[in-house]
Amino acid sequence: MAKINQNYLKLPGSYLFSTIGKKVKEFEAQNPNKQVIRLGIGDVTQPLAPSIIKALHGAVDEMGQEETFKGYAPDLGYEFLRKAISEYDYKARGCAIEPDEIFVSDGAKSDCGNIQEIFSTDNVIAVCDPVYPVYVDSNVMAGRTGVYDADQQCFNGVIYMPCDAASGFAPELPKQVPDMIYLCFPNNPTGAVMTKARLQEWVDYANKNGSVILYDSAYEAYIAEADVPHSIYECAGARTCAIECRSFSKTAGFTGLRLGYTVVPKDLKVEGTALHSLWTRRHGTKFNGAPYIVQRAGEAVYSAQGRKEIEEQIAWYMGNAKIILEGLKEAGFEVSGGVNAPYIWLKTPDNMTSWEFFDHLLTKANVVGTPGSGFGPHGEHYFRLTAFGNREKTIEAVERIKKL
Amino acid sequence: MAKINQNYLKLPGSYLFSTIGKKVKEFEAQNPNKQVIRLGIGDVTQPLAPSIIKALHGAVDEMGQEETFKGYAPDLGYEFLRKAISEYDYKARGCAIEPDEIFVSDGAKSDCGNIQEIFSTDNVIAVCDPVYPVYVDSNVMAGRTGVYDADQQCFNGVIYMPCDAASGFAPELPKQVPDMIYLCFPNNPTGAVMTKARLQEWVDYANKNGSVILYDSAYEAYIAEADVPHSIYECAGARTCAIECRSFSKTAGFTGLRLGYTVVPKDLKVEGTALHSLWTRRHGTKFNGAPYIVQRAGEAVYSAQGRKEIEEQIAWYMGNAKIILEGLKEAGFEVSGGVNAPYIWLKTPDNMTSWEFFDHLLTKANVVGTPGSGFGPHGEHYFRLTAFGNREKTIEAVERIKKL
Repeated sequence: MAKINQNYLKLPGSYLFSTIGKKVKEFEAQNPNKQVIRLGIGDVTQPLAPSIIKALHGAVDEMGQEETFKGYAPDLGYEFLRKAISEYDYKARGCAIEPDEIFVSDGAKSDCGNIQEIFSTDNVIAVCDPVYPVYVDSNVMAGRTGVYDADQQCFNGVIYMPCDAASGFAPELPKQVPDMIYLCFPNNPTGAVMTKARLQEWVDYANKNGSVILYDSAYEAYIAEADVPHSIYECAGARTCAIECRSFSKTAGFTGLRLGYTVVPKDLKVEGTALHSLWTRRHGTKFNGAPYIVQRAGEAVYSAQGRKEIEEQIAWYMGNAKIILEGLKEAGFEVSGGVNAPYIWLKTPDNMTSWEFFDHLLTKANVVGTPGSGFGPHGEHYFRLTAFGNREKTIEAVERIKKL
Repeated sequence: MAKINQNYLKLPGSYLFSTIGKKVKEFEAQNPNKQVIRLGIGDVTQPLAPSIIKALHGAVDEMGQEETFKGYAPDLGYEFLRKAISEYDYKARGCAIEPDEIFVSDGAKSDCGNIQEIFSTDNVIAVCDPVYPVYVDSNVMAGRTGVYDADQQCFNGVIYMPCDAASGFAPELPKQVPDMIYLCFPNNPTGAVMTKARLQEWVDYANKNGSVILYDSAYEAYIAEADVPHSIYECAGARTCAIECRSFSKTAGFTGLRLGYTVVPKDLKVEGTALHSLWTRRHGTKFNGAPYIVQRAGEAVYSAQGRKEIEEQIAWYMGNAKIILEGLKEAGFEVSGGVNAPYIWLKTPDNMTSWEFFDHLLTKANVVGTPGSGFGPHGEHYFRLTAFGNREKTIEAVERIKKL
């Protein structure tokens, strides 16, 4: 008689973004004349850059000819892409990451969700609060947590590291030492960053305690300030304690194209075993690579013309971020983020809960954002807006919020 | 102090195809003048059909314009593709599978590897012997097996179901009832099939015992005979006991494009929980969909012109299969498969082991195949050849084998 994975039943019913979607749908049905502006979900809206489109067409043509057709990709990804990543994302920043330490995948969500598999289910994880839900949920599914405490809005057995205004929305080193530490900077949802000096403390802490840091730098392309590290490998000693996940989604608009990668340095050993060999095995057994045409598109992101186009696109989104940030400040909101990240994090006015403010914004300004409490209990009384909308609508949304 | 997933250490060192690759590389280095022909790995060689190329170009253009750009895909896959699958792969064959029971993915390997996650680690699995290694290895990694017994070439705690010539390379119903049963027909590696009547016995057995069948029908497009089911849902009662994985890889040459899907009928409940809801949660948490452009390519496979092109491609590969099958019979080999599947399964001559025959074939005929023992102990003294090569080389390979 088959049995299910009971850990799945620990997960609370509804996912944040489906609840939002439902509420917005209901509102639109009841108010067909109102023009709702969505600054909620972190999905890009700009089309793929011309260099990427050109690379895609070229690769599609290759797939149509016997001489250039490509079947199964190499397990770790095509060498041309891994070399470009190693060169531009790492060596150019002084990080000695080799192509064979890079695992190309179909996106950072998959990697962030799957990476926990190579660790013992006895490990204790630490996450920021608020946090991107995938880190916690994937560990719940694996049985690495206790049950959900609805009052505390926390899973038992997980170390939640509060990120509040006082600490600049970055966590303090936890007193109870975790085995696995999830960090994401620039942060989703708060848009906060860590300086290199501060991140170095985490690397030292992990090396001292034998913890492994799972570093999500999906938003590194949005960094504008000089002392903010783009990669954890900019910190001394990170090669022996950190895995890094990256995405082309927010860097180059690949949310619908699906491409990401994970770096597992060969020096990173746990209980004497190289995590590189375990992740190689996982990749080889349960994954068959990202599409050839998409890997060629990824390569185009690193071409001279591609980099120029991508920079312009990011600058354009950050123009949106500036409009939101300054508009909300003007309107008297307490806001942060939006300088090195496409997310703006604001304190709800009049002590409203996150969901009260969601309803307020939807019904009064017809603007959709994301309730901070959906990312964890310390997100309560906060709210996330994203810079991924179109310019005109972003300006209009800010004007509406100002008039509230 | 972090700890690793010790289950990974149970896996024997080297993967079958990497060992083959190494041996071939060495031979080629030592024999630069010999032209080696590869009929080993199951990778397609024909370019993508014109309809698919056209759909890809069209979708790439959409991604380059703001009005038609697509970001994150719906969790289960685009409706246009799920509708086409439901229509052509199921309803046209009398199987009542609805679009919302279909989960589009990046390939059957990912799905076959990941599907075990929604089951308890206490479940006992049953696999055919010989078998596609992913079923076993993914369960080893999850801790659903004991250690590897090198003498028996088996993992403890797994029910291996021998598939030999006497039974037409299809397993008997196991006496010890498994919780999860992996079946793949048309079979990789043997090319064997099950008749509908025989598959019905498995469905009845599973329903009676509360087992779940994980049915891999990646090769259904190669079925030529009438009494061979394309889907397990052609059997009465399969909706309450079976999950089915499918792939576009072998159907339409998508090995480098990556597209597959899994069907989880809403009637399939284990311990009172719908597996559909668990797999939905898994998909939503750890996966972000297949690329939009690839889903459009998948849709093109079901167009009138696409179906015509695909049929021609499959007929072409099956022409290769016939050449191998008849040539080997002529040469006195004991062969099977190759009629409803792109795989030809042959008994090694002179009681050679599978690896002895591999070396014999490589050094004497300069032809690469796959040792049957790599798929399990009952694959010993067998050998797999594939119909995916190019025509000229396939003919040449058979001529060389005949001269041995």
